[in-house]
Amino acid sequence: MGSDSDLNVMQAASDILKQFDIPHEVTVVSAHRTPHRMIEYAATAKDRGLKVIIAGAGGAAHLPGMVASVTVLPVIGVPIKSSNSIDGWDSVLSILQMPNGVPVGTVALNASKNAGILAAEILGTSDEAVSQKVTEYKNSLNNEVIEKVEKMKRDGWENKFD
Amino acid sequence: MGSDSDLNVMQAASDILKQFDIPHEVTVVSAHRTPHRMIEYAATAKDRGLKVIIAGAGGAAHLPGMVASVTVLPVIGVPIKSSNSIDGWDSVLSILQMPNGVPVGTVALNASKNAGILAAEILGTSDEAVSQKVTEYKNSLNNEVIEKVEKMKRDGWENKFD
Amino acid sequence: MGSDSDLNVMQAASDILKQFDIPHEVTVVSAHRTPHRMIEYAATAKDRGLKVIIAGAGGAAHLPGMVASVTVLPVIGVPIKSSNSIDGWDSVLSILQMPNGVPVGTVALNASKNAGILAAEILGTSDEAVSQKVTEYKNSLNNEVIEKVEKMKRDGWENKFD
Amino acid sequence: MGSDSDLNVMQAASDILKQFDIPHEVTVVSAHRTPHRMIEYAATAKDRGLKVIIAGAGGAAHLPGMVASVTVLPVIGVPIKSSNSIDGWDSVLSILQMPNGVPVGTVALNASKNAGILAAEILGTSDEAVSQKVTEYKNSLNNEVIEKVEKMKRDGWENKFD
Amino acid sequence: MGSDSDLNVMQAASDILKQFDIPHEVTVVSAHRTPHRMIEYAATAKDRGLKVIIAGAGGAAHLPGMVASVTVLPVIGVPIKSSNSIDGWDSVLSILQMPNGVPVGTVALNASKNAGILAAEILGTSDEAVSQKVTEYKNSLNNEVIEKVEKMKRDGWENKFD
Amino acid sequence: MGSDSDLNVMQAASDILKQFDIPHEVTVVSAHRTPHRMIEYAATAKDRGLKVIIAGAGGAAHLPGMVASVTVLPVIGVPIKSSNSIDGWDSVLSILQMPNGVPVGTVALNASKNAGILAAEILGTSDEAVSQKVTEYKNSLNNEVIEKVEKMKRDGWENKFD
Amino acid sequence: MGSDSDLNVMQAASDILKQFDIPHEVTVVSAHRTPHRMIEYAATAKDRGLKVIIAGAGGAAHLPGMVASVTVLPVIGVPIKSSNSIDGWDSVLSILQMPNGVPVGTVALNASKNAGILAAEILGTSDEAVSQKVTEYKNSLNNEVIEKVEKMKRDGWENKFD
Amino acid sequence: MGSDSDLNVMQAASDILKQFDIPHEVTVVSAHRTPHRMIEYAATAKDRGLKVIIAGAGGAAHLPGMVASVTVLPVIGVPIKSSNSIDGWDSVLSILQMPNGVPVGTVALNASKNAGILAAEILGTSDEAVSQKVTEYKNSLNNEVIEKVEKMKRDGWENKFD
Repeated sequence: MGSDSDLNVMQAASDILKQFDIPHEVTVVSAHRTPHRMIEYAATAKDRGLKVIIAGAGGAAHLPGMVASVTVLPVIGVPIKSSNSIDGWDSVLSILQMPNGVPVGTVALNASKNAGILAAEILGTSDEAVSQKVTEYKNSLNNEVIEKVEKMKRDGWENKFD
Repeated sequence: MGSDSDLNVMQAASDILKQFDIPHEVTVVSAHRTPHRMIEYAATAKDRGLKVIIAGAGGAAHLPGMVASVTVLPVIGVPIKSSNSIDGWDSVLSILQMPNGVPVGTVALNASKNAGILAAEILGTSDEAVSQKVTEYKNSLNNEVIEKVEKMKRDGWENKFD
Repeated sequence: MGSDSDLNVMQAASDILKQFDIPHEVTVVSAHRTPHRMIEYAATAKDRGLKVIIAGAGGAAHLPGMVASVTVLPVIGVPIKSSNSIDGWDSVLSILQMPNGVPVGTVALNASKNAGILAAEILGTSDEAVSQKVTEYKNSLNNEVIEKVEKMKRDGWENKFD
Repeated sequence: MGSDSDLNVMQAASDILKQFDIPHEVTVVSAHRTPHRMIEYAATAKDRGLKVIIAGAGGAAHLPGMVASVTVLPVIGVPIKSSNSIDGWDSVLSILQMPNGVPVGTVALNASKNAGILAAEILGTSDEAVSQKVTEYKNSLNNEVIEKVEKMKRDGWENKFD
Repeated sequence: MGSDSDLNVMQAASDILKQFDIPHEVTVVSAHRTPHRMIEYAATAKDRGLKVIIAGAGGAAHLPGMVASVTVLPVIGVPIKSSNSIDGWDSVLSILQMPNGVPVGTVALNASKNAGILAAEILGTSDEAVSQKVTEYKNSLNNEVIEKVEKMKRDGWENKFD
Repeated sequence: MGSDSDLNVMQAASDILKQFDIPHEVTVVSAHRTPHRMIEYAATAKDRGLKVIIAGAGGAAHLPGMVASVTVLPVIGVPIKSSNSIDGWDSVLSILQMPNGVPVGTVALNASKNAGILAAEILGTSDEAVSQKVTEYKNSLNNEVIEKVEKMKRDGWENKFD
Repeated sequence: MGSDSDLNVMQAASDILKQFDIPHEVTVVSAHRTPHRMIEYAATAKDRGLKVIIAGAGGAAHLPGMVASVTVLPVIGVPIKSSNSIDGWDSVLSILQMPNGVPVGTVALNASKNAGILAAEILGTSDEAVSQKVTEYKNSLNNEVIEKVEKMKRDGWENKFD
Repeated sequence: MGSDSDLNVMQAASDILKQFDIPHEVTVVSAHRTPHRMIEYAATAKDRGLKVIIAGAGGAAHLPGMVASVTVLPVIGVPIKSSNSIDGWDSVLSILQMPNGVPVGTVALNASKNAGILAAEILGTSDEAVSQKVTEYKNSLNNEVIEKVEKMKRDGWENKFD
């Protein structure tokens, strides 16, 4: 992430990766305040054994795109609605609208949890155990809704018709 | 893709995958006109051997998100600026702003080429040959710019200072 | 509705339908977490005797459009300004901008009450009693304003001119 | 419609209604240039036997909402991207964002065809023959896509994988 | 104004008119809930002696434009950022983007005070006493700033340079 | 107007004023290129006998607001969609969103004709002959629509119902 | 700045200039309430020894552009998100979108600190001592991040991988 | 500039600098395709004798901000409306909304000419000859308008009042 103030948003990515038992590192890399560190970090990421990079940043968010420019690992971008952001539009467009040749797979505003899930799905393309965990996770989402539906039926909310 | 009218935009994804020698299929799956086919297509994709799904659509573009709801494969969304789109904002937001649990890795408006590259990067996480091809591709982008710079220098454009 | 967190917004639809004595059911159907249930729910709605479907959802709101893709019942969409929405624009555009062939009649952001009234107007096209109730409701809106106007006149607020 | 310059957009509504054999009238009613005619037209619509009103207008498009204010018929609004519109945003928001009590079921920008289909779906709630025609229409959309898919397979486009 | 909930915003218009000793009336006229009253109110306004109409409304704000359609008095529109407005854009565009032939002079979002001043300026075109009061008011704005500047200088804030 | 390139848009204001026999002057006053001339022009406008100022400009359009800051005449602002404008949003917001104390009555994007009509309405508050001409003009708009309606009826377009 | 209510935003510019030991003045100059003072202030700024002007304003923010129209000093514009601003878009576009010939170097919404740093960078082009201070400042930003990274490593946050 | 396709927009910066006799270099530096060259170029710019950097780029335009992160020279950003840009909003926000500590002085969309003038104004803070040229240039803008005004008067366009 671009700043430690992004931690409260980005934590959800780490949480879901932990839930999937996927080892990962969490650190701060600022495109604008530590450009050399950023280049170094991203350029060596593959050799250090990383498979996917999740980069979250706010405002004129250059971190995801710049990381993507020096690695061939898939980069997932998380636009963050930071304090002086213009309603999040700046971070969304700064991350999403990458030029041809240097893609960033962007998720929804503040959606670091989804970034973690997407990373797991990517790892799952070659690791069936991880893929299985994502399957279970998605099934659990389905089941949670079904349970709520059952509860609404059972407790009788407004079900005049069924 | 959601419609055969998206073909002129989506072809670039196929072209770059061919350039990387990555086998792939190209077809039309409409979330709104063929919902059952869409569910079927996406739900069986993994078992048919697919590793990544690239889904492009315009307007209220539900295809990428709906595909993501029935697969654990990573889904890459390509917002398409179709004819009655409101400047592309509708397709961008319909694809990007997915709720927690069901991520779509979204690329820039009409950027199907980047979708192809991102797919290759994902495959490259477990296939070093593909990863190498992406590395070569990114190097070639760098070299093209350097050559243009050299040419601009050689041919003398405005370089009063260097 | 797409999530039980939408209940506080969607309740107004149920309230106004109750006020019009129109039987209805209220449940949660998530396009992204329960896609199979959604298809099933919508595809069988007509045969179960439903006449109109009101579908409310936030963010990349695919529920109303996907429901419309598997039913010939009129579908009324309610864009909901959920927590990580980009000011509601995502849900508005995801619901409104449906492609040719699969319409959703969209009401204002969070306007579930209006969705209920529109549903009543639709039922009123073949049920004069319902139509009459909507007439009375709209008259009551008119009368409320007139009463306020009279009160403002009577209590003398600023009426220097009349 | 609010102006005869909207005819090229609105014709599609009439065309699809004709395709469904639904009798209808087409006329120009301007909220701003003929306000008395508009009130008269809308207030008497139900008594003249109309069941649904489709109102299309551009810019600060007040026609659909004003019509809805004097009728209990369901009103379908079609935002039109007219010449001096600000990319269609003005007509979309002027039609969609109606206050509580006076709903307009809004379709996509310029989507008069969908307005016609939605009108048919509304009529279909009490007329099974019309409902059947909409079913056939939606099936035909599905079949068209399937045929294109078959043709793409048969003619061999890029199907390296299937 | 379109609703008594707009009173807290619209009061500033009345306040400044009182400050300028300009007689005026304040009332509620809803385009959508009391369309007949609105037409009546606006159509008779000139004969009742009104010279200018200030119309404030929120959301899909049709009041100013509809009033303008049945009067030849100048109409000043005040877009109001009401509770379910999409950040005020809906009321701004619904009021501003009037078609040719039916102008509304629109002021800033919630700027009812400016509407009052503009009304005074309009009356001032034929009433030098009113014009003089606006002159004094604008001078007082200037003087207030000058006094603050003097105070900032005197109290020494940061004036290292002057 | 701020530039002679705005002439093609602003001419409509002059045309309608001529149609109403309202004497007027047309000139170029640039806020940014001729700031002193602008201040001089606007500050002396009232003494030179002007009653209303119509100011049209594009991009970061400061002309209407700056003119309003040095006159007590009513100022009508016309946002112009100039070549490098961001879809007209910059000129609309630069003209509309004036701070308290200095109103500009803003008309729609490029709507110089409406600016002319609004000017006539303002003059009509103290000149019944002008007011009468606006009345006739608005009646003519109404009649044009009615004639088109009659023609559509007579020539039989789709009137299956009436 | 255009108003003393902008002080809480603009103070950061003064703070950073003090940190760089750069003499400066802070005052209120309103384009709309004190137009003559504004012209005077800006037109004489260079002769009074000023080198750079930082102008912050909100809403239809004309101050930076108007100042730029009467000086040849570089003008830095700070868009301020004031109370009735439409999410800051009005001030951003009013300051940024200046016509050819009269540039304003605009910084981010509310980013007066960056305006101060940019002013220092401008002065640094001819004053190596100032340039050195900016260098040290940017290094300190880098070091702060590095320290946080070290602390995160040392305190062991989630670093399962490194 | 970030790409040689930006040349047609960026040439105006070079043209105006030539007009002011300011030596300068023109080259292509891509943040995303040549990140190492970009860092090198910007980090060494000051030592090579550059005083100001003008950086133009489109889409997710990271060049200006990244250049600013490795230099203490003032950086002027030119947002470019490139082919797949979303109406220029992406480049505007990616360049403008820089975080605290790393300013970019942004000019209007495509306004490379203004970037050149702003660069001259910056150089003019320590070079009176350059400052004088900018003064003459701004005077010439004023004179051009005055001449057009005279011509309009002389040739009699609509001046019924003066």
